[in-house]
Amino acid sequence: MSALLGTDVVVQLGFVVWDVEKTGAKFAEFFGVECPPTCTSGDPDVVKGSYRGEPTRASCRMKFFETPSLQIELIQPDDTPSVWRDFLNEKGEGMHHIAFRVKNTDEAVKTLEAKGYPLLQRGLYANASGQYAYIDAQEDLKMILELLEDFDENVKG
Amino acid sequence: MSALLGTDVVVQLGFVVWDVEKTGAKFAEFFGVECPPTCTSGDPDVVKGSYRGEPTRASCRMKFFETPSLQIELIQPDDTPSVWRDFLNEKGEGMHHIAFRVKNTDEAVKTLEAKGYPLLQRGLYANASGQYAYIDAQEDLKMILELLEDFDENVKG
Repeated sequence: MSALLGTDVVVQLGFVVWDVEKTGAKFAEFFGVECPPTCTSGDPDVVKGSYRGEPTRASCRMKFFETPSLQIELIQPDDTPSVWRDFLNEKGEGMHHIAFRVKNTDEAVKTLEAKGYPLLQRGLYANASGQYAYIDAQEDLKMILELLEDFDENVKG
Repeated sequence: MSALLGTDVVVQLGFVVWDVEKTGAKFAEFFGVECPPTCTSGDPDVVKGSYRGEPTRASCRMKFFETPSLQIELIQPDDTPSVWRDFLNEKGEGMHHIAFRVKNTDEAVKTLEAKGYPLLQRGLYANASGQYAYIDAQEDLKMILELLEDFDENVKG
């Protein structure tokens, strides 16, 4: 038996929030660190996002906290429907996804879709150095999965 | 600055589910492992649980998946009101808490309560080798925290 994704390493836990500055300050206090800078999901023309099979210009603001076992991501979505915004509207603030690093997103998406885990959203990182894909595993695994593929990592690997 | 709990190591991610056997089988397939055994929260007279300040006999059935970065816990609560059951009723299945290992639960609870994070539920492990406490950090940190204190660990440490 092997892991469906070829990895069992959870690298990130993502939250959706209404106010990334306010919640970021609380996380910084909790972890005893300086509040990390806020970044954005980038220029829609660069990141080429798609949500439920249609191109999207949805964006978000994010803060990343590095902890020993995994990265914690806070996401404040804009008003456009997205994997972040629809979750926030429907379920409210809270834990949204766990992420795994993959070497080949297309292959991983195909493997997961064959198991009944459909692709929800995908796009490039803000600086186009990698890509992400969100997978709907809510029925079987009770969560959304994120795949992270760092293009540089693959060149190095 | 130091972490409120004296640690920033997330050791566990807990899910509440309606059927720990069914969801456990899906997680086992996803991670490519044998499905771990189901255990229970133990004899209520031994674990001496309390929920929202009142003694409780609430129980749950659990499966634990060991992954490189953290432990994943699936929890199927019984019908009695508890930190697990009330979440399941109100928010549905999904990610429920992240856990940190602490050396002194009473001290950690006091520190967190002073920051506006109230204690929700506490009790002993099924074999009384340690204790757990759930903290309501939903307003500020958008999640429930769990503190885990292993009595043996303290003796050794």
